[in-house]
This record gives sequence, structure tokens and C-alpha cells, in this order.
Amino acid sequence: MRTAEPAAAAAPSLVGPDRLAEFFAPRSIAVVGASDASGWARFVLASAAATGFAGPLIPVHPRHRSVFGRPAVRSLRDLAEPVDLAFIMVPTGAVDEVLDDAAAAGVRGAIVLASGYREVGGRGRARERAMADRARAHQITVLGPNCLGFINAHARAGPFALTVPLPLLAGPVGIALQSGALASVVLAFARSRAIGVSTLATLGNEAMITATDVVEYLIADERTKVICLFLEEIGDARAFAAAARKADLAGKPIVALKAGSSQAGSEAALAHTGSVAGDDAVVDAALRQLNVIRVSSLEELLCTSAVLGYGRPPRGRRMGVLTSSGGACDIIADRAAGEGIELPEFAPQTVAAISAHLPSFARARNPLDATGYFLANQRTSPLTTVDHALDAAVDDPGLDFVLFSGVTLPEARPADERAAALVEDRVAWLGQRIASAPIPVMSVTSTCVDVTGYSRDLLGRHGIHLLGGIDLGVQAIANAIRWAEGRGRVTSGRRWPAAVRDVSEPPRSLAGPGGVWREADARRLLADFGIPAVPAELARSGDGAVAAARRLGYPVVLRVASAQIPHKSDIGGVALDLRTASQVRIAFRRVRAAGARALADAGDAIRAPGIDGVMVSRMRTGGIELLAGVSVDPTFGPVLAVGLGGIWVEAMRDVSLRVLPVDADEVTRMLAELRGAALLRGARGTAPVDLDALARVIARLGEAALSLGGSLRSLEVNPLWADRDQIEALDILIVTAPPDRRAAAPSQNGPRT
Amino acid sequence: MRTAEPAAAAAPSLVGPDRLAEFFAPRSIAVVGASDASGWARFVLASAAATGFAGPLIPVHPRHRSVFGRPAVRSLRDLAEPVDLAFIMVPTGAVDEVLDDAAAAGVRGAIVLASGYREVGGRGRARERAMADRARAHQITVLGPNCLGFINAHARAGPFALTVPLPLLAGPVGIALQSGALASVVLAFARSRAIGVSTLATLGNEAMITATDVVEYLIADERTKVICLFLEEIGDARAFAAAARKADLAGKPIVALKAGSSQAGSEAALAHTGSVAGDDAVVDAALRQLNVIRVSSLEELLCTSAVLGYGRPPRGRRMGVLTSSGGACDIIADRAAGEGIELPEFAPQTVAAISAHLPSFARARNPLDATGYFLANQRTSPLTTVDHALDAAVDDPGLDFVLFSGVTLPEARPADERAAALVEDRVAWLGQRIASAPIPVMSVTSTCVDVTGYSRDLLGRHGIHLLGGIDLGVQAIANAIRWAEGRGRVTSGRRWPAAVRDVSEPPRSLAGPGGVWREADARRLLADFGIPAVPAELARSGDGAVAAARRLGYPVVLRVASAQIPHKSDIGGVALDLRTASQVRIAFRRVRAAGARALADAGDAIRAPGIDGVMVSRMRTGGIELLAGVSVDPTFGPVLAVGLGGIWVEAMRDVSLRVLPVDADEVTRMLAELRGAALLRGARGTAPVDLDALARVIARLGEAALSLGGSLRSLEVNPLWADRDQIEALDILIVTAPPDRRAAAPSQNGPRT
Repeated sequence: MRTAEPAAAAAPSLVGPDRLAEFFAPRSIAVVGASDASGWARFVLASAAATGFAGPLIPVHPRHRSVFGRPAVRSLRDLAEPVDLAFIMVPTGAVDEVLDDAAAAGVRGAIVLASGYREVGGRGRARERAMADRARAHQITVLGPNCLGFINAHARAGPFALTVPLPLLAGPVGIALQSGALASVVLAFARSRAIGVSTLATLGNEAMITATDVVEYLIADERTKVICLFLEEIGDARAFAAAARKADLAGKPIVALKAGSSQAGSEAALAHTGSVAGDDAVVDAALRQLNVIRVSSLEELLCTSAVLGYGRPPRGRRMGVLTSSGGACDIIADRAAGEGIELPEFAPQTVAAISAHLPSFARARNPLDATGYFLANQRTSPLTTVDHALDAAVDDPGLDFVLFSGVTLPEARPADERAAALVEDRVAWLGQRIASAPIPVMSVTSTCVDVTGYSRDLLGRHGIHLLGGIDLGVQAIANAIRWAEGRGRVTSGRRWPAAVRDVSEPPRSLAGPGGVWREADARRLLADFGIPAVPAELARSGDGAVAAARRLGYPVVLRVASAQIPHKSDIGGVALDLRTASQVRIAFRRVRAAGARALADAGDAIRAPGIDGVMVSRMRTGGIELLAGVSVDPTFGPVLAVGLGGIWVEAMRDVSLRVLPVDADEVTRMLAELRGAALLRGARGTAPVDLDALARVIARLGEAALSLGGSLRSLEVNPLWADRDQIEALDILIVTAPPDRRAAAPSQNGPRT
Repeated sequence: MRTAEPAAAAAPSLVGPDRLAEFFAPRSIAVVGASDASGWARFVLASAAATGFAGPLIPVHPRHRSVFGRPAVRSLRDLAEPVDLAFIMVPTGAVDEVLDDAAAAGVRGAIVLASGYREVGGRGRARERAMADRARAHQITVLGPNCLGFINAHARAGPFALTVPLPLLAGPVGIALQSGALASVVLAFARSRAIGVSTLATLGNEAMITATDVVEYLIADERTKVICLFLEEIGDARAFAAAARKADLAGKPIVALKAGSSQAGSEAALAHTGSVAGDDAVVDAALRQLNVIRVSSLEELLCTSAVLGYGRPPRGRRMGVLTSSGGACDIIADRAAGEGIELPEFAPQTVAAISAHLPSFARARNPLDATGYFLANQRTSPLTTVDHALDAAVDDPGLDFVLFSGVTLPEARPADERAAALVEDRVAWLGQRIASAPIPVMSVTSTCVDVTGYSRDLLGRHGIHLLGGIDLGVQAIANAIRWAEGRGRVTSGRRWPAAVRDVSEPPRSLAGPGGVWREADARRLLADFGIPAVPAELARSGDGAVAAARRLGYPVVLRVASAQIPHKSDIGGVALDLRTASQVRIAFRRVRAAGARALADAGDAIRAPGIDGVMVSRMRTGGIELLAGVSVDPTFGPVLAVGLGGIWVEAMRDVSLRVLPVDADEVTRMLAELRGAALLRGARGTAPVDLDALARVIARLGEAALSLGGSLRSLEVNPLWADRDQIEALDILIVTAPPDRRAAAPSQNGPRT
């Protein structure tokens, strides 16, 4: 359910896996609003035929006696017996009445095609809510509105208002799309690559059935081995995360093309769905945390699903490559290196076995160019050099899987029976060898061309799936490896969004405008969580500053203390490297004056207590400065960002993100992801930072942020200073919601409006 | 020509464009070594049929009377009249004799299929040279050895020993491949996307005809509009650069898939061709400088060629997008943003014109989702919403081109004549509108599926080419834009490799082992080229150092001066920030002792003058440190590298490269490419660096390096210090070949052995 309203509490039974199993396998369908003039109705009839739908398919229209030659009824109320599903393609204004008719007729499922709902904003949103409430009251499960229906290839049901490219191949890939028009495109590509589909659902506006509901259904669906999503938005992050965790436990990979990676893309999504996109980098991090494989093209979406749906995922990154082309070897090796896939040397026994079949001038190395030398003389055996190489390589103990680029078939069955037998015996042998092989074998074509007719049927008969070209194929394999590597780490997702603890209390009086905390309060919160901060004291006079400096030890730093001035160095409110009492005294006057000037310049815009004094702290030199901060994403809640400070974050955007909560191990991985990670390991001759200590401190920072519950806006330590095992927050900025606005905290993740 | 030997001087006429135009359009062909058992021979006969070869095709075999039903002759000497071309598929040992026969028979062209030449190293290399010399002596042009022939679709000649996927479409794409086995793959993908080919040549070992020769031929070939290369190595960089420049002037784009981007890939190439790969980053830079579009997959290679072969390149980056799917809009917008392609708003008149055809709930924005609403009611006009949008958008003054994702055709001609007429009238209208449009229109399918049968023929009749899917399509368009933007900048390529001037003389006595210069000599060379270095003096005693420091002004830096110690800070030979005479005196002793210790540790391994003294220089603080260096690539000669110093180069590999020579404008572009470029513009609050001044200094550094001619090994300034308009070399390291080895300088680019 998208909405978290109390009214929705009774609804789950309408969209749970069992109910959706029923919904997606109707045995009888009514097409309401069907007429001979409607392209949609024509498509629904055609897709029923394409899927081999055997049940009644009844047009419903108030005026037509027959539609496309089928007898029509005037209303659902006129049905002799209830249908399982009503495909409602009437104009928007008539939908509610049809739902009433459906209820009266005992129909339990409906697809609503009409547009003019949430995607047009304003009144459309209210109309959509009313429609969903009505359906809920009628106990009718609704797909849509603004959708094009679905196809269930195994159940042979296809209430689908677009072209179904033929033949429709039933298979392991379950698909849910937040764009109806892409459904035909996805089916066409799947057809071209002989990728079989279980259920494909177009989601439309998700007034009732959400993407997450379909994911839960597909997890439960035995026919589905892999789940394939096109997403424009992730509505309820908590529900999605729970489903992703369930999928991970069940061993069903989720592959997602999430649009909106660019500003333009997210505006495009906004324009036609009315959805609000968060920061795409957060989406990226969140999906990785949930072990959802994010892809960037439709081809990659389907090919990755095919690797996972048709084969076993590799156990590791050591690949054997078998081809009949030196050029293909080069391209595969380059592509593999880009994905971090290794090409180890073959074991001696593999070299020996392969060499026995190679011409003298060729070498049995990985990647293998088996050459076209077998063409020199007539073939007497069905197997070619590359096949013998496969036979040996699958037993190589140093390989985790084999990329086999040796399947090239004639376009039609050879007229010559002997030639046809050679081809077919070979494919049968390959099918058996691949099935019996101790490691996965991925068959990859050289380029992404269609797999059709003779070769599709022959390969299908022998259980061989061909990946779509070297480029897509290696990418898809790498995605599958990443999925296998990520399994079992999806532990915290179910707690997203996480900021619901409200353990810590924001201070009674927030000094700054917009909820900025006083630094002293911020330091206290960090101390509560065991996060070390640089020794510091608040001084209210030059003498006080000198006394503080003496206690802290020189050199010191002075910073004007005012919650109204979050960025102190910008206004000259910071003095560094002060080594004597007189330097401290002069600096005190200077930074306090700078602060006063800044407040005066801001004028009446700010009504607040003003300057608290000047913070005196020990000057830290050497070591490395980092940034660690938590902000709140509208979809995923509190998100931790970690980076090296300064130029790394500003110019290089070298930041690692995670949705909270995270533990110290996860923070260690975040640090390792930074492009500048070498610095932490002592790249520039400095001593290496104690990464475990650093990770523990940053993890505690996440805990501190979460403790603020729904009032959290942001918590940032910048710089966070690290020198060997000494880690200290040098400057801290905490912002919480003003007390009167805490109820509206975005991290509560209410209905997205 | 690969070899630069004097013997080769007479050869150009054998491989020049005119001679190759004759070679690639034979009217009669003999297949030497053909037998019924040979798969190669069978393929050559089939490809003759596939290309529609009309001339005599004569098997030659010492024992067989007939081959595949054709009467055979025993030897080329037995031919009644000479053939234009001999396809020689005899074993390696028999090739030379066949060449003698060919010469006797007056044959002017030969393809050699046999392996066992350069690619097996050692004796194979000698065998190859002897074969080529023999052919040259006979005035026979040879393609190969170790190749599979060629196809010329326009001349209807196909002496090609692999499958030709049918139908073979003649078209604008000329292809040369350094991997024979990829030829069928490339043809299959071209066929699948209806991409027409002019000449496709497999190059093999390039004993005589090189990739560059074929490029020159394709530039001259009227039927070829774009040149498509698969390269494992670039043999003679100077010749290749000259050809690339010619192609740029002629407006014929070169698109290249150059293998070896990874270590594994370059090893794979090495293994099966025996070629030696240089640094791939240099290849990348060189190809960009030559405006050769480098791609990373076979699909990208062909699709980029298709954009350029079938359409006009866009004049700019402002794209209008027209689709019937919101999901496609999202994906296109994301992909475009990744390529730096803009999606501006439509002009008001475009919005008005499109809106007139849209349903009320849809908005006329860019990217446009024209929706599937036209399906609601029977079509009476051939044009759909998206077609009307195209009609308006091509006149939008704010667009440079249109991506049109609206062509979806039935798989076969509709049986209903009215429906068929609607489809065909629509395609005819689209063809005309695209042809008459003031800006280019790129038609893109949603995914990369085959274009076949009915739609291929219909679209082809109306001059519409469909790009292969959003992902590949947008990538190919972006490549075409980059090509158009890069035109006319290919000015210096013909002078590669550039280090042939020998203007400056290396100092008589090089102090360091391996050709390391004394710093004083290095400073003198830089001074000759007007490159400022930090003020410095060589001191031989503590007193001398103090005196120097007084003259130079405090603070100073001391560095041990010894050409035997190129990396001084590693051994403790540097003292920074010295502010008093006594500090200088102590530091002098320390760094000199460190130097002496280092030399002692190195022991007898080094026989050299030892320590010259201690270099005293002004200490520079603030500003920014860069690195600028020239090294010598085995293929491209001297290469300039520019980066920000320290961590940027070490950990981030943030370096910009160019093959020399470059001017200051090019250096400005190099600086702009750096990821850390923001630092130079004053990102961290420091004053911006005078980029023009910096670029001028670095360009002069390139000149200084080139002045050393063939003796140059490397010249590095690290750090190169920049503070506003003050640019200074702080440390300089020059290495030239020891005098006795200068003749073997790699930059001479002799034969690659």
C-alpha cells in the first residue's frame, strides 16, 4: 500500500501474495468499454489469443450487441455468472460506476486503464483515492489506474492492452513496470533473446496494487526465478526494503532499472507520473544495501535477469573464456577487466586437454582462441575444437565459471541430413555438458542479435540460453556475481526508514534559526554516544579565552559561537594556529567582531539570542580531515554520508552513502569505496589511520542521529579529524525541526503528496 | 607500410588507394588449394554467391579435377588468362611457390589465409618478411597472411572465407578488421540492424596491406561514408595519423574499437598476434587528438557508424525527444544527461502545434510522451500524435536534432489492405519529413532488436535508418556529436611521432646512471625554452649554502644534488622551510650525509661522480603543485602528461595526456579535463591560477622535450608550482639515452620487433 492511512489497515488481504496469485490467473475476463473502434480492446483480444487464454472473454458495452464478432453484454450486472477479472477501459468519469457494477456481479479483480488520476495532480489525486476506497469497500483488487494490464504466460492469461510479440515464451522472469508503454518493448526484447516471462504487470498509478505487492507475489510465485523491475519511484521504502529482504532470503534476485538518475530524467518522471524523486545517489546506495541490482538500460535489465533466471550464479570471479576468435578474446578480456572479473591461467591438465585438439600454432591459454582451423578439413565429429575445450575447462579447479562463445548455428535446419545431424548432435552434447558441469557455463553470442526460429527452438530444447552479445553478456554476468556476493547482507533494510526512535531529546531552546543547535548542546549529544570531540571550552572574554587556551594547551583555534552562524569560516569567524596569549586575545576580539557584524548584516531576518561567546579548542595538525554527516531523504529517511573533507567532497563529490542504520563493518566498506581511500591508508607518507576506530566513531554518529527520531534534519561533523587511532569531531552542526513543526518531520514517511 | 625499411620504399604503389581500388574489386578470382573438404573453400564459393559475384571463380588444386562441381586447374600457371585475384588457402609452406605461380600467371592481387607467420614469433616473423618481399618483387599486392579475405558489396565481390549472413546490404560503412573471425560477427550485427557495408577487409598480419592502407582506400572510395575499424595494434603511428587527418578533412569519420584497454585484453592481443601494446591511456589520448571515435563494443562500433553513415551529424547538443512512452522518456533523458546532451524546452509555437494533437491530460514538453491515447478510437489518418509532434519539432529553432522513438511497425504486411495502406503511407510521410527537415532526425528503436523483413524493406525504401535501442542509440548519437565537434582540430597528427628534431644537445657528460641529467643542466635547458624555475644555487659547503640562502631570501629548501639520486625525498635528501642560517647549516650536513649514505648503500652498482653538492632554493608556500612530464610511448613517441601533483596523480590517476606536439590552447583543454580542475580555479578559497600562463609554460615544456630528439627518455617537472600568474619548476628530472645507445632510441619508431 502506498498510503499509510488508518483506512488502509484492512486492505492487505486485497493485495497479499495469495490474493494476487488469484488476481494474476483469471479464468474468465470481461472487457468493459470494449468496442470495435478501440485499439485497446483489439489488443486485449489479441493478447488473450497470444497467451492461449482458454476461458470466457466477454465484451461489455452499453450500446454494442457484439464486439469483434463476440456477443457483448450491456453491463457487468448482466453477466450470467461472475468473471474473475474486469478489464475496465471506460472513460475516467465512468470507472466508479463500473466498480459498483463489478461488486454487484461478484467480480473480485479489476484493471483500470483510464488516465486522469494522480498523474494530473490536484483533483486527480482525490479522484484516485476515492476510486481506490470504493474498490476497497467492494473488496475488489485493482491494478492501475493508468495501466495496460498484465500477462501471465504460465497461467495463459493476458488481459493486456498492447501488442504481445509472438511467440510469447513462458519462463522464469517476473516483471513489474511503472510504465505501461514499456511493456511491449520489454516483451519484444525478451522475445528477441528467447527470454521467457512468468508474469508481467504494468502498474500504472498503483492506487491499490503497488510494485512492492507485485514483488511479494513474484517471490511467492514458483514459476518466477528472478524479478525484473522498471521503477520511476519507490513509494513506501520500508515495505520495499522488507520485500527485498524476503527476496534475498528466498534466493530470488531483484534487478531494477530505476529512472531518474539525471535531473532531466527525474523531471521527465515527475512530468508524467507526478512522483517526487529523491537524491539519486541515495537510491543507488539504498538499492545496493538491499542487494537489488540496479541497471541502466532495458537490455541490461533483461539480460541480467536471463543470467539469473536460466543459470546458476557464479561462485566467484575467476572466469574461463572459450572462443573461436582472437578479436572476441580481446574484447571479452577488456570488458571483464572493467567489471573486476579475473581470467586466471588454465590448470596444467586443462592446458594439456585443450592442446590435444588445437592446431600446432595455437596456444591453450585463457582466454582461448580455438581458431577456425577445424574448417581446413571436413568434419566427421559433431564437436569442434572449442567444444573439446569446454569439456576440459568446466573441470578446471581454478575457475568459477566459463564464458562460452562457441555457439554459432545455421539460421535454418540444414537441408543436408548429415549436416543437420552434426549440428543437432553438437547442441545436444553441449546441453548435456553444460547441465552436468560442476561450474556454471554462460553461453554468450558475439553481438546482440535476435535468437530466432531454428536455433531458438533447438537451443531451448536442450536447455541452452544465449546471452546477448559480449558487451551485455559480460555486464549481465558481472551483475549476477555482484548479486551472489551481496546475498545475506540485507539485514537492516526492514527497519527503513530508521529515524523513529526518539531516544534523545533536542535541547529545550534551540538557539539558531531553522533548528540549528548550539555547539555545546551538539557536543553533549556526541559525548552521550561516545564520540570524541576535540577538547574545547566556551569563552566569553579575551581573558577567559586565554585561560581556556592555557588549560587546553597551545596551539589553539578560536571560533565564534553562535547557532545563527553555522558556517563560521565564511564570515571570518575562525582563527587558526594561535600560539601565544596575545595572539588569543587579538583573535578573540576579531572573531567576535566578525560574528557581530554577520548578525548585524543579517538584520531583522534573524531573531535569536545572538552570540554565545567564542569557542576555544586545541589546534589539530597533521592527520586527515573527513566529513561525516546524516541528512534525511524523503523516501529512505536518514542517510549517512562519509567522505574526505574539503576538495574531495566539494570538487570530486567523492562521498559514500548508506541509508541508516549501519554498523561499523558497513562503515568500513564505505571508507574503502572512497576514491581517496589511499590517503587513509597512508598514501602520502603519513601514518595510516586506524580504520576500525574511525568506522566505530562514524557508526556511533549514525546512532546519535537516529536517536533524534523524527525531529532530525541533519547532523554533520566537518571536519572529523583522524590521526592514527585518534579520532575527533572538530566542528559539529546539528539541525532539528523547530518544536512546532516536529509532527511534520519528513522522516515519518507518511503518504507522499 | 608497417616496416620502415629502405626496401619498402618502392612499395607504396602496391598498396596505394588506386591499386587497392583495383585489388578490392576483382572481376575474376582463383581459389588456390580449394577442395571439397575445405570449409574455407565452401565459404568462399558461398560468399561469391552472396555478393552476386558475376565473374569467373576458378578452383586451383594439384590433384582435384573439380571442386564443388566446378572444373579445377592444377596450378595458376594453367589458367587460360590471368585472374585479378588469387585466394591462396594452401598450407604455409606452399604459399611462396603459389606466389611464384601467380606472378607467372600475371596475377596482381593475392589473399593469403595461412597462419604460422608473425603471430608465432621467431621464425614466423622471418617467414612473413620473406613472403612479403617475394610478393613485392613480383609486384603482387597481398592481403594477410592469417586473414580471411574481404567483401566489397558495391562491386559484388566477396572472396571471403567465412559465413556471409544474408541478405548482404550494400551501404555506406567501410570496415577493416585486425581479427578475421570477427568479420562474420560484424556482418551479422550489421545485417540485424540493416546497416549497409561498402568494403569489409580482414587484415590478418598486415605483411603488406596495413589497416592504414585500407583507411586511405576507404577515404578515396566514393561509396564509403564512414570508416569502421577493429584494431589490436596501431602499427605506424605517423602513417595512421596522416590518414586520420585526411579522413577528417574529407569529412569521413573513423570509428574504432581498439582492443587492449585492459592488461588482460592487451595480453590477449599479444598472445594471438604477437603485437606489443603501449599504454592504453596514450592510445585513448592519441585517438581523441586524431578525432577518431573510440568505442568499446562491437554494437557501439556499428551503431555509431550507422548514425554517421546514414544521417547528418547534429550541429549541436540540443535534442528534442519524441516518444509514445513515459518510461522511454525517463530512460532517454537519463542516458542523454550522461552524455552531456541537453533537452531544452520546446519553443512556444512547437508546444502549441503539438498540444493541438495531444489528449487534454498530456503536456507538450521535451521529452514528449505522446501517449497511446490514439488507440482509444479507430485511426482514419496514417499519422499518429507522435508524427504530428515530429512535424512541429523539426522546425523548433531551439533544437539541433530530434530523437524520434515513434517508428513501430508490424512484423509482416497487414493482410487488411486498408491497414497496410495506413502503415505504408505513414512511413512514406516520415521518410519525406525526415529528408526535408532542417535538422537531423535520428530514429531510435526502444531496444536493440533486429530490423527484419517487412519493416527493413519498407524503411529502406523510404530512407529511414533505425538506431539500435535507446542505450546504443543515444551513445551513437553522442559519439557523432563528439566527432562533429572535434573536426578541424586534427592538425598536428601528421607530425607524429614528433621527437625527431634533435635541436638541443644533451650535456656531454651525463652524471647519472641510465642517462639522468644533473639538475643544473636540466635547469639550463628549461631556461633556454623560457620556462621559469625557482631561484636556486648549488652550494658545496654549509657556508656556501648560508650565503646562497641570504642571496635568495628566506625561507629556503635544501636538496642534495646528485644525478644518481633522482628521488631525493625518499632518502631524506630534502630539508624544507629553513628560516635561519643555523637551520641551513644543520640541514646542509644532514641532506649531504643522507645523499652519501644512499650512494654508499647502492655500493659498486653505481660508478659515477657522486654528489655535486646541495641545491639551495627559495621555499614556495601556498599556490598549487602540479606535475608536468613527457615520456616516450613505443607507438606514438613523446607524450605529455599533466596533473595535479601528489595524491591526485598517485591515488586518483587524475592525469591528462596528449601526444606531442601540443600548443598552449591544447594544454588549456588538458587542464580543464582534470577532475581536480576546480582547484586551479580557486575552489578552496585560494586565488585562481592564471591558466593561460600555466598552459604556456607547459606547452614550452613539451617543446623542450621535443628538442632532445631521439635521445629523449623522459622529462619531468614535479612539482610545477603555480600561484596566480607565477609559475615555477621546483624540481626537474631529465633522462636521455646514454650516448652509446642513442641510435636505438624508441622514438625513432623503427620496425616493431
